[in-house]
Amino acid sequence: MSSYADRLKALREQLKANSLDGFVVPLTDEHMSEYVGSYAQRLAWLTGFEGSAGSAVVLPEEAAIFVDGRYTLQVRSQVDGSHWSYQSVPETSTTQWLEEHAPDGGRIGYDPWLHTRDWVKKAKDALASRGAELVPVERNPIDEIWTDRPEASKAKLVVQPDDFAGKSAAEKRTEIGDWLTKHHADAAVLSALDSIAWAFNVRGQDVSHTPVALAYALVHADGTADLFVASEKIGPDVQQHLGNGVRLHERSAFEGALGEFKGKTVVVDPERAVAAIFEALEKAGAKVVALRDPTILPKAIKNDAEIAGQKSAQERDGAVIARFLHWVDAEAPKGEVDELKASDHLEALRRENGEFRDLSFDSISGAGPNGAIVHYRSSEKTNRKLEQGSLYLIDSGGQYVDGTTDITRTVPIGQPTDEMCDRFTRVLQGHIAVATAVFPKGTRGSQLDSFARRPLWEAGLDYAHGTGHGVGSFLSVHEGPQRISPVGSAQSGGDEPLLPGMILSNEPGYYKTGEYGIRIENLVLVVEREIEGAEKDMLGFETLTFAPIDRRLIDAEMLETEELVWLNCYHAHVVARIGPQLSGADLEWLRAACAPIER
Amino acid sequence: MSSYADRLKALREQLKANSLDGFVVPLTDEHMSEYVGSYAQRLAWLTGFEGSAGSAVVLPEEAAIFVDGRYTLQVRSQVDGSHWSYQSVPETSTTQWLEEHAPDGGRIGYDPWLHTRDWVKKAKDALASRGAELVPVERNPIDEIWTDRPEASKAKLVVQPDDFAGKSAAEKRTEIGDWLTKHHADAAVLSALDSIAWAFNVRGQDVSHTPVALAYALVHADGTADLFVASEKIGPDVQQHLGNGVRLHERSAFEGALGEFKGKTVVVDPERAVAAIFEALEKAGAKVVALRDPTILPKAIKNDAEIAGQKSAQERDGAVIARFLHWVDAEAPKGEVDELKASDHLEALRRENGEFRDLSFDSISGAGPNGAIVHYRSSEKTNRKLEQGSLYLIDSGGQYVDGTTDITRTVPIGQPTDEMCDRFTRVLQGHIAVATAVFPKGTRGSQLDSFARRPLWEAGLDYAHGTGHGVGSFLSVHEGPQRISPVGSAQSGGDEPLLPGMILSNEPGYYKTGEYGIRIENLVLVVEREIEGAEKDMLGFETLTFAPIDRRLIDAEMLETEELVWLNCYHAHVVARIGPQLSGADLEWLRAACAPIER
Repeated sequence: MSSYADRLKALREQLKANSLDGFVVPLTDEHMSEYVGSYAQRLAWLTGFEGSAGSAVVLPEEAAIFVDGRYTLQVRSQVDGSHWSYQSVPETSTTQWLEEHAPDGGRIGYDPWLHTRDWVKKAKDALASRGAELVPVERNPIDEIWTDRPEASKAKLVVQPDDFAGKSAAEKRTEIGDWLTKHHADAAVLSALDSIAWAFNVRGQDVSHTPVALAYALVHADGTADLFVASEKIGPDVQQHLGNGVRLHERSAFEGALGEFKGKTVVVDPERAVAAIFEALEKAGAKVVALRDPTILPKAIKNDAEIAGQKSAQERDGAVIARFLHWVDAEAPKGEVDELKASDHLEALRRENGEFRDLSFDSISGAGPNGAIVHYRSSEKTNRKLEQGSLYLIDSGGQYVDGTTDITRTVPIGQPTDEMCDRFTRVLQGHIAVATAVFPKGTRGSQLDSFARRPLWEAGLDYAHGTGHGVGSFLSVHEGPQRISPVGSAQSGGDEPLLPGMILSNEPGYYKTGEYGIRIENLVLVVEREIEGAEKDMLGFETLTFAPIDRRLIDAEMLETEELVWLNCYHAHVVARIGPQLSGADLEWLRAACAPIER
Repeated sequence: MSSYADRLKALREQLKANSLDGFVVPLTDEHMSEYVGSYAQRLAWLTGFEGSAGSAVVLPEEAAIFVDGRYTLQVRSQVDGSHWSYQSVPETSTTQWLEEHAPDGGRIGYDPWLHTRDWVKKAKDALASRGAELVPVERNPIDEIWTDRPEASKAKLVVQPDDFAGKSAAEKRTEIGDWLTKHHADAAVLSALDSIAWAFNVRGQDVSHTPVALAYALVHADGTADLFVASEKIGPDVQQHLGNGVRLHERSAFEGALGEFKGKTVVVDPERAVAAIFEALEKAGAKVVALRDPTILPKAIKNDAEIAGQKSAQERDGAVIARFLHWVDAEAPKGEVDELKASDHLEALRRENGEFRDLSFDSISGAGPNGAIVHYRSSEKTNRKLEQGSLYLIDSGGQYVDGTTDITRTVPIGQPTDEMCDRFTRVLQGHIAVATAVFPKGTRGSQLDSFARRPLWEAGLDYAHGTGHGVGSFLSVHEGPQRISPVGSAQSGGDEPLLPGMILSNEPGYYKTGEYGIRIENLVLVVEREIEGAEKDMLGFETLTFAPIDRRLIDAEMLETEELVWLNCYHAHVVARIGPQLSGADLEWLRAACAPIER
C-alpha cells in the first residue's frame, strides 16, 4: 500500500468488515513501551508520525491524531492534515475526543494488549455517555491489513555482568520475594521490558535504542521466577546466568500461565501492565492487587556500581562530544556540513568506543529552524546545512555497557545575534538554577521545575516540555518514576520524591519557531548535601555530564556572580575529566572552549 | 461532663448502645466548612483540639486524632496523649488508619452529613479489606451525649450592597443558569456557605470570622433559585433584596426538596457537598452530575468593585497595623505587654473603623517560642509576655464590608540575634521572590511555591505549611480554588491555574521549635504583566497589603540589589498609602520604620 491515505482507507474497510465504527491506535506495544520494535509501529505505519509519543482515533468520517507540545510542529510536517485532524494533549485526549465525536450507538474497537485498564475504563465511560460501546478486538485490525509488517526481533539476550549491575539477579529476586511477602501476595507480573532486563540482569536488542528483549516475567514470593521469552533468544551463557531459580517458557505461553493463578494474590502495575493481563488474571479467579511494579524504585535508585559505571560512560561520551564540537567548529564554516552528516559523524565517533552498543535515542540534529522542533529527527527531506549566522542544536546519547548518556549542546555557526545570546544565557541560568538547587528530602521534581523557567519567564518566554526525565543504567533513556516537570504535564514518569542515587536530565530550552532552538542538557545525580546548621536532610545534584557549554553564546553581563563561578568551575571540571582522553588540536580546542570567562 | 476522658468514655458507651464499634469525627459541618459554628464543634468538644483542621477516630480500645504539619505542636499541648494517639496527615489518614486498626468484622459509624462521597467510598473500601463495615448514623452520637450543645445561630442575614459586590445577585443567578444550560443540567446544589453568600449577595453571622449564614440553595437553569434558611433570619430588607426570583424555604426543608428531582439532572460538587446530598438525590431518581460548584471560579476572580474594595480595606487595615506595631515598640520594652493584651489592643484599634465587622480569624499572637507554633492561639494558660531578646509574631486579619484582610508581621523585642536576622532575611527573600514572580498564564500556584523556599533550603531550612491561600471578598479568609503550595500538601484549596483578579496570601516563614517563629505575610493580586518582546500572556502579582516589614531584622548584606530595591520601594508605597491616615508620633514612627535601607 503506497500512501497513508490508502492505509487509512484500508483500515476503515477492515473495521467495517469487523462490524466496528472506529478504532484507537496508541503508540506502544504489549509492554507499554515508549520505544517499540518495528513490528509494533502501527501508528507510524498508519499515519506517518515518527515522534515518540502519540495516538490516533479512526472513525468512519473523521480521524484524529493526538500529540503533546513536543510534537506540535512535527505532526504537521509528517501527517497529512487533509485526512487527519491534529489534537493537542493534554488539552484533549483520545477519550475526551471520543466522547465528543463517537457516533451514537457506535462500536469503537481497541486492542486490550495495547492499553492500560485505566484508559479502558475512561474510554468506556466516555463512550457510554454517547450511547456508544468500547469493544475489545481479538486481533488488531491494523495487523490484518499491514501485509509487510516486520517480524518481531530474534536477537539473542546478553548477560549484564554483576560488576556493572552492582547486584546479582538472585539478590534482586529475593528482594522482590520479600516485598511480595510483606504485601501478602504470591507473585508479581513484570511486563515492562526494562523492569525485566533490570531484574534478571540481562539485556536485549529487540527495541531500537533501548537494550531490552521482548519478554514477560512472573516473580514469586519464594524468589523464583518464570521468564517468558522466545527460546531461540536464549544462548547457553544466558541460561547458565539465569540459573535454577528461573523457569524458562516461550513468550506465547504467558497468557495461558496467567490462567493458573486461581485463588492466588498477584501484584500487577496498572500503569505498566495492559488491560488484557488484568482480564486474564481476573477471569482465572486470581486476586489482583494493583501496586507499582516492585522493580521501579530500586531500578531508579542507582547503586555504587551503577553510579561508577555511569560516571565512566559519561567521561568517555563527553570526550566524544568535545571531539564532535571541535569538528563542527572546524568544518561547518566551510559550508558543507548538514544535519545528517553531523549526526553520522557523531555516531561514528561514538562507535570508536569499545563499550558503545547503540545510540540511546535517535539523535536530534537540528540546524537553524529545525532546532526549534523539540523532538526533531532529520531526514533526507528535511536535512539542512549548518549555515552562517544560525544555531545548531545536537541532542544525542549513547548506550554503553556501563551507562546510558543523554546530552544536548547548542552552538553558533558564525556570529550569533544578541537575541540568541540573551536567550541562551537565560536557558543557561535556568540550567544552573537546577544544577545548584538544594532541597529537603521528600521534595518532588515538580517543585524544582520553575527554577529552570524563571529567567525565561522574566522575559515573557517559556518552553513547552519538562525540565528533566529519569535515565536508566544501560537501559531506557527515559526512565521513571522521577522527573522534573510541572504536575499534570505530558512528560513520561510520575512525580516521585527525589532520592539519592536517582539520575535525571537537566534540560531547559528555548525555541523560536522558524528561526532557532536552544537547549542545554546535562545529566545529574541526586546526592546528599551537608549544610552547616541544617535542620533537614538535604539533597542536591552532582552533574555527571562533562562537555563545553558554548561560551560564544553567553552574555556574561547577565550572569550573577555565583552563576559565573558555577560556569567557570564546571568548565574546569570538563578539562580535568575529558582532557586526558584528548590530544593535539582536540585538546587545544577543549582548553580554549573551557577557558574561564572574566568579567 | 467535666473532662475530655469522660466525654470519650461516654461516646464509647453511646456507640456500644448503637451497636457500633467505632466512629469518625471530622472537623466540619453539613456544608464542609473550614470554620464552623459552635453547635458543630464536635471535634473540639470531644478532644480539646482547637485547630482549624483535623479529625478523629474512636475505636473501643484506642482513639486517634489526625492533624497536619501546622498543628503538630498544638495537638500535643491540647489533646491528652494518654487517651489519644497523634497521627500526621498526609503521612496517614483516617481511612488508612482504619484499614490498619479497625476490628475484624467491626461496624464503624459515620455521619453522612459530615463527609464527602469520596471519603465514604475510600473508607468503605479500606474497611472492606479488614472485613469491617462503614455504617451511616441517623443521628450523630456525639449530639446524643453533648447535653449542653449550643443551638445554631439565629443571627439575621444582611444585604451585601452591589457597590461592593460589583455584580447583582440576579446577574449571578442568570450566569449560573446559563452555565447549567451549557452543561445540559436542570439545577445546581449550592451547599458551601460562602458560595451561597456570594451568589445571593448576602452575608451572615453564623460562623465565627466568616460572614456567612447557615443555608442551602438550589439554582435552576432558568436563573431562579430556592434558598433554604431559617425564616427568623430573614428581615424585610433581605426579602426585598432577594426578589421574586428566589423562593424561600426553611433550612430543614432542604433534604425533602432533594426528593423532588426525579428524572432531572442536578449538578453537585463532590468536594463541597456531603455524601448525604448525593444519596438523597440518587434515591429520588435524579441524574447527579459531579461538577465543581459553578460559583467557585467567578468568586475567586475578583471584579473591579471587589478589587477596589479590597484595596480600600487593606489601606485602612495597614494603618491599624502600623499604629499597633508602633504601640508594641513603645510598650513592650516596659515589660507589661503579653500576647493577649497585644491581640486585644490590635482588635480594639480595628474596631475603631466603621467598616470593621469581625476578625477574619482568631489572631495568632505568639511571643518567643509560641511564635513557632504555626497556628497558635493564645489563651490564659499559654499567655506569655513579650520579653527582651525575643521575637513577636502577629498574624491577624479583619472582615470589613469591602474586603477581607490577612497580614503577618514579626518584630524583635529588644536586640535580635544574628541567627534571627539571618532567618528573617531568608524568609524576606522568599517573600520577595513570590512578590516579583512573572509567569505565563496557565501557571499553577504549585509552580511558584519553591521560589519562596529556596533561600531557606540553601541553609538547610524549610517551613511546614503552604506559601499562600486564596482570600475572599468580605468572605472566607481561606478561599479556593487557587493556592501557592506544593501539590499533595494538606493546605485547603486545589491547584488552580492563576488568573488575573485572584487574591492570594504570600506568607513564607521559619519556625525554631521552643525558640521563635518568623512569618512575613502580605496579600497579593494576580495581574497581567506587560513585558517587551513577550511571546506569552504573562502574569504577576500586585501586593495589596501595606505595613512596615521590620528593618531591624534584615541583614541587608544578604540581599541582592533587586531585593533591596523591592524592599525600599515597598516601604515608600507603605508611607504613601497609610501615612495620610496617621499623625503625630504614629506618623513619625512609620516614616522611620519605612526609611530606605542604604548599603
